[in-house]
Amino acid sequence: MSTYKAPLNDMRFALYDVIGAEAVFAKLGFADATRDVLDAVLDEGARFCETVLAPLNAIGDRIGCVHDKSSGAVTTPPGFKQAYAQFVEGGWAGLVSPVEFGGQGLPHAAGVPLKEMIDAANLAWGNFPLLSAGATEALIQHGQAWQQEVFLKPLVEGRWTGTMCLTEPHCGTDLGLLKTRAQPQADGSHAITGTKIFITAGEHDFTDNIVHLVLARLPDAPAGSKGISLFLVPKVRVDRDGNTGGANTVRCGSLEHKMGIHGSATCVLNFDGAQGYLIGQPHKGLMAMFTMMNTARLAVGLQGLGLSDRAYQNALAYSRDRLQMRALSGAKFPEKAADPIIVHPDVRRMLLTCKALIEGGRVMGYHGALLVDIAHHAPDEAERAQADALLGFMTPIVKACLTEWGVECTYHALQCYGGHGYIAEHGIEQLARDARITTLYEGTTGIQALDLLGRKVMQLQGAGLQVLLGMIEQFCADNEANAAVAEFIAPLRDKAAQWTQLTMQVGKRAAANADEVGAAAYDYLMYSGYVALAYWWARSVAASEASAQSDAFKAGKRETARFYFARLLPRTLAHAAAIESGTQTLTTLDAAAFDA
Amino acid sequence: MSTYKAPLNDMRFALYDVIGAEAVFAKLGFADATRDVLDAVLDEGARFCETVLAPLNAIGDRIGCVHDKSSGAVTTPPGFKQAYAQFVEGGWAGLVSPVEFGGQGLPHAAGVPLKEMIDAANLAWGNFPLLSAGATEALIQHGQAWQQEVFLKPLVEGRWTGTMCLTEPHCGTDLGLLKTRAQPQADGSHAITGTKIFITAGEHDFTDNIVHLVLARLPDAPAGSKGISLFLVPKVRVDRDGNTGGANTVRCGSLEHKMGIHGSATCVLNFDGAQGYLIGQPHKGLMAMFTMMNTARLAVGLQGLGLSDRAYQNALAYSRDRLQMRALSGAKFPEKAADPIIVHPDVRRMLLTCKALIEGGRVMGYHGALLVDIAHHAPDEAERAQADALLGFMTPIVKACLTEWGVECTYHALQCYGGHGYIAEHGIEQLARDARITTLYEGTTGIQALDLLGRKVMQLQGAGLQVLLGMIEQFCADNEANAAVAEFIAPLRDKAAQWTQLTMQVGKRAAANADEVGAAAYDYLMYSGYVALAYWWARSVAASEASAQSDAFKAGKRETARFYFARLLPRTLAHAAAIESGTQTLTTLDAAAFDA
Repeated sequence: MSTYKAPLNDMRFALYDVIGAEAVFAKLGFADATRDVLDAVLDEGARFCETVLAPLNAIGDRIGCVHDKSSGAVTTPPGFKQAYAQFVEGGWAGLVSPVEFGGQGLPHAAGVPLKEMIDAANLAWGNFPLLSAGATEALIQHGQAWQQEVFLKPLVEGRWTGTMCLTEPHCGTDLGLLKTRAQPQADGSHAITGTKIFITAGEHDFTDNIVHLVLARLPDAPAGSKGISLFLVPKVRVDRDGNTGGANTVRCGSLEHKMGIHGSATCVLNFDGAQGYLIGQPHKGLMAMFTMMNTARLAVGLQGLGLSDRAYQNALAYSRDRLQMRALSGAKFPEKAADPIIVHPDVRRMLLTCKALIEGGRVMGYHGALLVDIAHHAPDEAERAQADALLGFMTPIVKACLTEWGVECTYHALQCYGGHGYIAEHGIEQLARDARITTLYEGTTGIQALDLLGRKVMQLQGAGLQVLLGMIEQFCADNEANAAVAEFIAPLRDKAAQWTQLTMQVGKRAAANADEVGAAAYDYLMYSGYVALAYWWARSVAASEASAQSDAFKAGKRETARFYFARLLPRTLAHAAAIESGTQTLTTLDAAAFDA
Repeated sequence: MSTYKAPLNDMRFALYDVIGAEAVFAKLGFADATRDVLDAVLDEGARFCETVLAPLNAIGDRIGCVHDKSSGAVTTPPGFKQAYAQFVEGGWAGLVSPVEFGGQGLPHAAGVPLKEMIDAANLAWGNFPLLSAGATEALIQHGQAWQQEVFLKPLVEGRWTGTMCLTEPHCGTDLGLLKTRAQPQADGSHAITGTKIFITAGEHDFTDNIVHLVLARLPDAPAGSKGISLFLVPKVRVDRDGNTGGANTVRCGSLEHKMGIHGSATCVLNFDGAQGYLIGQPHKGLMAMFTMMNTARLAVGLQGLGLSDRAYQNALAYSRDRLQMRALSGAKFPEKAADPIIVHPDVRRMLLTCKALIEGGRVMGYHGALLVDIAHHAPDEAERAQADALLGFMTPIVKACLTEWGVECTYHALQCYGGHGYIAEHGIEQLARDARITTLYEGTTGIQALDLLGRKVMQLQGAGLQVLLGMIEQFCADNEANAAVAEFIAPLRDKAAQWTQLTMQVGKRAAANADEVGAAAYDYLMYSGYVALAYWWARSVAASEASAQSDAFKAGKRETARFYFARLLPRTLAHAAAIESGTQTLTTLDAAAFDA
């Protein structure tokens, strides 16, 4: 079985020393978000995740959620419900929700290390509160006062949970095709009818009620994505005064059998004239969904990070223990039967790849979360706009890269185990299976890439990219004389310059042929992720050297940064070549000629 | 559920048009290996794999093998046993075994497309005959006459199956550590005692007897890998005259629960003074094992290929059917609700990546198999030696690259399905889980890389590399005026020159520090695989243009080669940079400082 220990020291380092969250929180007016409070959240959160959630991860995988066909009820794996009760009792559900709705009012970024820990400890379980957070955010931004009073407070307290019901059998990415109907009723409510699939946390035994947020079409809706409205459909009927009635006509028809996250209930939900309430404006449902997309996507990025870290921790321990062969340069532990495999450079290559992608990814992910706070709460409008532009630019990068790296890191970690990694009892293969969902849901990597290049770069004239390039140049200028990071300055400036040049090149080509965006998007996204990570690694080394961390910690940051620049950053060469090759090699071949 | 159709046209193209197997077989004296015979093998093999094996793949995954603790017996999934009976009845078991032992005497390479089909249709099932083939080869090369008479013939006929018992709980890669003991008995047999793990096909219900080939130590054995002998241990006792006695004292203690290949029995085998017979010379067991390593490793490479192809076929069909969004360059099917996703360049990127790695990998894998035949049967000793050198060089490349690409292709195929790919019923996630074993067993990718760079390049002075570089230069020289492939000549020559230069650079460094081999090995292996594949793609285009294939087929080869050169071959840039960066970024950090 795999174990998990929250990397509290590195989390604090990322949060305080690299991105300076404490000072930012103070500036944004979060008076309660002091270091004492944040540290207590980290310590208590780690205790909960390590001792309650992590031990349930394997049983959640083995037993999974169980659906009762006759009643439509879903039973979660043993221990999941009790863990959720502890979560609610501990006040975790409302950690970053506004005080006025019963939350603790901490900034968004203060909840992010906890999110990482939950995902590392038990991704399947973590999906239940994650979906509640999405519904909560939607109601904060778009709910009417009575909806907030009746539905939002129980969500914030964790007494009820929420869902997001978007996908239908024939449409996932392309929500413009959706068919679920909303019929206005005399009392101002709507009768919702249709079938939704892939509804995470759509049915379970954690709470008495579930608040479904459902995309559907009003009778007068225009075709396509501009005719979609958002409705709130409770599992148990609730009137405007908060009185609960009988069961609503929404039912879980079945659970999907999946590659992983077996403890997460992935439901087919059938709405049969179910009582629903319009959220926000008619036909503006997709826009309402998009407002919470940044945080949802950043959150899935953290899932990749959490799984990577748990896999890495276990692979590292295994590599220090497992004796096999001698170092090629001579026995390192002649008194043992063989050397531990961590002496072998190729095992170190796999471990350092994980360490570089995880610790760098942690800073990148936490910084994305901090941008959410700045974009919402900075006193200065220009600062908010700038943060919002950078947040929009970084969101698809964080989501796609941290999840792609999650697939990669769990791959390397498993590989360190050799054949033992393939055996269920070690728990590593579960992490690899669980990680595989993260590049798919909340928008595939391909969709993130289109969002980045098509929307954030092309449509928005690369405003976010400009902010980041400015930060990189500022860092380089500030650190020219800093011996600790001098070696990274020139490569960073080179990559930043190439990034600008590649962006202009694609922009020019896309003006002539829109397919150029799709052809370049994936490689542009990965290129961007690797350059952004190089920046965060250079900043991490600078912050580490200036910190009071141990020599071993500083050596870890310095050598991992060197490894990253020497051995991972060159992946940008392959991505740049692919970007430069344009659309021709992708679009010429007739679709009928793809067969062998 | 995923489907499978053997790509017979491309298999024939690879076998006949690209590597010219027919002419080689004739030259090697395989009079029966005519095109008629080979075609019949392909057609009949495809029928068997498509109609018998492929439909059992999902049930094999769902039900798996079942172990009876009280008897030690293993029941294979429903239909597996009957499929094996059909396999034996069809004469497939002995297809490439010598006529003198009851086989059909076809060349090794003639069995390779069948192998690919079996793996694509049902990898878990395919592992049973695969292990028999290994045991068969060992007995052909190292068995005494009576052993061949008593044990080899039933193996060739398929009446019995075989295993290879190497791994023990504390040693896999490092067999020098193994502890299983062999005690000489008065009758010339040996009593074998010890525990072996990860024994594929170690127990099952296909046949009455199982022939275990077991590595163990004689009492007077030197320590380490030079003190290991090879023994034959039948499940049911057999004397020298072929009379079967009672059960031998070997028992399946348990089955492993694995990430995939659930239908393949992965056994813990307990040998408790079991009757065994020495195979070959005392203390030379590891050498005897190594003689069959080339074919076993090539075979696992084909597993990666087969899984990739099945995943690709299904993803391609899905991408043609699934309607979602419009092409960025304007609707391609305005009469439909949306365009099929194959119009999107990013979906094509994933599909073409699969097509390039599969069809190129097929040629590379088949050529590896042809080298086995040439190395064994060429009339000219120099030709045999040359083929053997190239075979030794290509074996780790084929094994590692085709399996790494198997992981990659099943990843892309699943990604084409979006969230649906994560759902078991589509069958794609099974292929991804099954593929994950292939980079682990029969030597991990890291071990293949050390074999390539440490042994085949450094110890053997790159003899195999020189042969391949000669072939590449010959092809370039021959095709300078060939308009069909002119565009590929200069890049090929560039990469070949860089390959030589990188090899010399690593060699020079390794002379000063042996760790340089381990530090460069993985990237050197992948670099080599991509350059070799570029060569086979250029040859494929030349062969295609010269063939009577359809225009669509020729366009497929040409455009996929262009895609490969433009978008995948640049991965060599990243690998070259990693190779050039040397060992420092891998070995400097203290093992204790890897934690976050």
